[in-house]
Amino acid sequence: MNETRFMAAAVSTFFDFPAYLAAAKASVEEALDDSLGPERPEQLREAMRYSLLAGGKRLRPILCLAACELAGGEPAEALPTAVALEMIHTMSLIHDDLPAMDNDDLRRGRPTNHKVYGDAVAILAGDALLTRSFEMVALRSPGVPPERLLKVVGELSLVAGAPGLVGGQVVDLECEGKEVDLETLEFIHLHKTGALLSACVICGALIGGAEDDLIDALRIYARGIGLAFQIIDDILDVTASSDVLGKTAGKDLLADKTTYPKLLGLDESRRRAELLVSEAKAALEPWQASAAPLLALADYITSRDR
Amino acid sequence: MNETRFMAAAVSTFFDFPAYLAAAKASVEEALDDSLGPERPEQLREAMRYSLLAGGKRLRPILCLAACELAGGEPAEALPTAVALEMIHTMSLIHDDLPAMDNDDLRRGRPTNHKVYGDAVAILAGDALLTRSFEMVALRSPGVPPERLLKVVGELSLVAGAPGLVGGQVVDLECEGKEVDLETLEFIHLHKTGALLSACVICGALIGGAEDDLIDALRIYARGIGLAFQIIDDILDVTASSDVLGKTAGKDLLADKTTYPKLLGLDESRRRAELLVSEAKAALEPWQASAAPLLALADYITSRDR
Repeated sequence: MNETRFMAAAVSTFFDFPAYLAAAKASVEEALDDSLGPERPEQLREAMRYSLLAGGKRLRPILCLAACELAGGEPAEALPTAVALEMIHTMSLIHDDLPAMDNDDLRRGRPTNHKVYGDAVAILAGDALLTRSFEMVALRSPGVPPERLLKVVGELSLVAGAPGLVGGQVVDLECEGKEVDLETLEFIHLHKTGALLSACVICGALIGGAEDDLIDALRIYARGIGLAFQIIDDILDVTASSDVLGKTAGKDLLADKTTYPKLLGLDESRRRAELLVSEAKAALEPWQASAAPLLALADYITSRDR
Repeated sequence: MNETRFMAAAVSTFFDFPAYLAAAKASVEEALDDSLGPERPEQLREAMRYSLLAGGKRLRPILCLAACELAGGEPAEALPTAVALEMIHTMSLIHDDLPAMDNDDLRRGRPTNHKVYGDAVAILAGDALLTRSFEMVALRSPGVPPERLLKVVGELSLVAGAPGLVGGQVVDLECEGKEVDLETLEFIHLHKTGALLSACVICGALIGGAEDDLIDALRIYARGIGLAFQIIDDILDVTASSDVLGKTAGKDLLADKTTYPKLLGLDESRRRAELLVSEAKAALEPWQASAAPLLALADYITSRDR
């Protein structure tokens, strides 16, 4: 990577977000492609690649790179961690899609991992991606001080495990078919979605050498966009078709899942998402122009249609 | 823990291995018990505890503590890593026992995790234990320099993932019901069993601040006891009853799995295990009396009857 500072590239007199997004996404795709070696057996490698390189907006790694740059670091140094975050996201999708859990056949417009490779290999490919994420940070992040990398490992270990993704998924499974209140719904979303989005910006900022005040502001930012992200997801499940979503639409309704639209109605859900996004953006106000990518990403998340 | 130096306690004029083993095991059990917090939901915590605190010889954590002490470190400083290693071992058992994989009903004399908590929670409890293992190292290892902890994270990330346990398990699954040669059998065992046993002594030694020559010797030691361990396991599957083993005996034969006794015969398998153990012990000769616990552990492994 030669042009590592996406923001420097994209800012001249105004901030060209599409150019920023395209440059960041391209560097993430390249790093993802490089992250899987010649695993033995080949079948394991294929299963890992199948889900990791299945496309998507790469929102999480891009948030990580943007936060690193905001903290004054080189995005290239955060790239292995950005990959690690996408690996954790991917493994959670693979495991959640399993017949023993959400039993999903379709993900990003393609058959889910276990439909292609079988349950055993899907479980193991998820395990391998989770483990590789720690390898990316510990062994494949040259030039970053060990203390910073160890903090990143700590952050990832919390969001990927019982205090994060796993805890959220177990509560979610327990609530299936039950009436759920707003507090529980937010617990699920903060753990299943919010924790990892938060880790993206925190880990990026840690690698960039952020001070505590920026870390605190980013936690507020991340909480806001994390919840907004999930509300939009719930709204899209009601309003969009499977074709646009690339996954089974209306599934929440069919599964009788509690969602924001169900609890609050569509209009109130939309208002709440907008409020959360403006609160998130307000937290980064002191950083002004340097925060442009994260501010634009916050808007991007709420305007998405899939 | 007050008496942290088990060896100092156990050595007077001779090395009292049973006393050493008992002291080390007690400290490991206590640390394992402390390692799981009040997870939400409670069901997740129970599933994690059910398998992590199911007893067993705690060979892996004890190897880690012994290697730390041999390297000149305080075993107490390696205790969180010792717990991490047992967590990785436990998660691999939980996932391997699943119906989608080896479909085992019995483990350590009790129903397997998924028989008690269901497949979904068993998968997630495994994920949570794997992730917690990295948390133990990164966030719960006070007093150890970050560079050493980061090396431990790197070592764990290799053995738990595609280059270790996961790779071994996928090859094992692929070979089920097929004729397998000795090279493939050793690949499976070195990855499914050997890699983690090796990580135990390497991680302990890293925390103790070992020099490169000790690390090299420990890799030879670990490879030897790792393979010997697996040969004994294969032998016991033929010769012991389910009652003694605490797991379904004769399962390898029923599954038509390739094993050492099948490839080499019982006597030759025993001879090979003994040879591997004496080679392992020879590697530690330069360290003389300080290596007493690891030497005794090598013998302990080959004389076990379950």
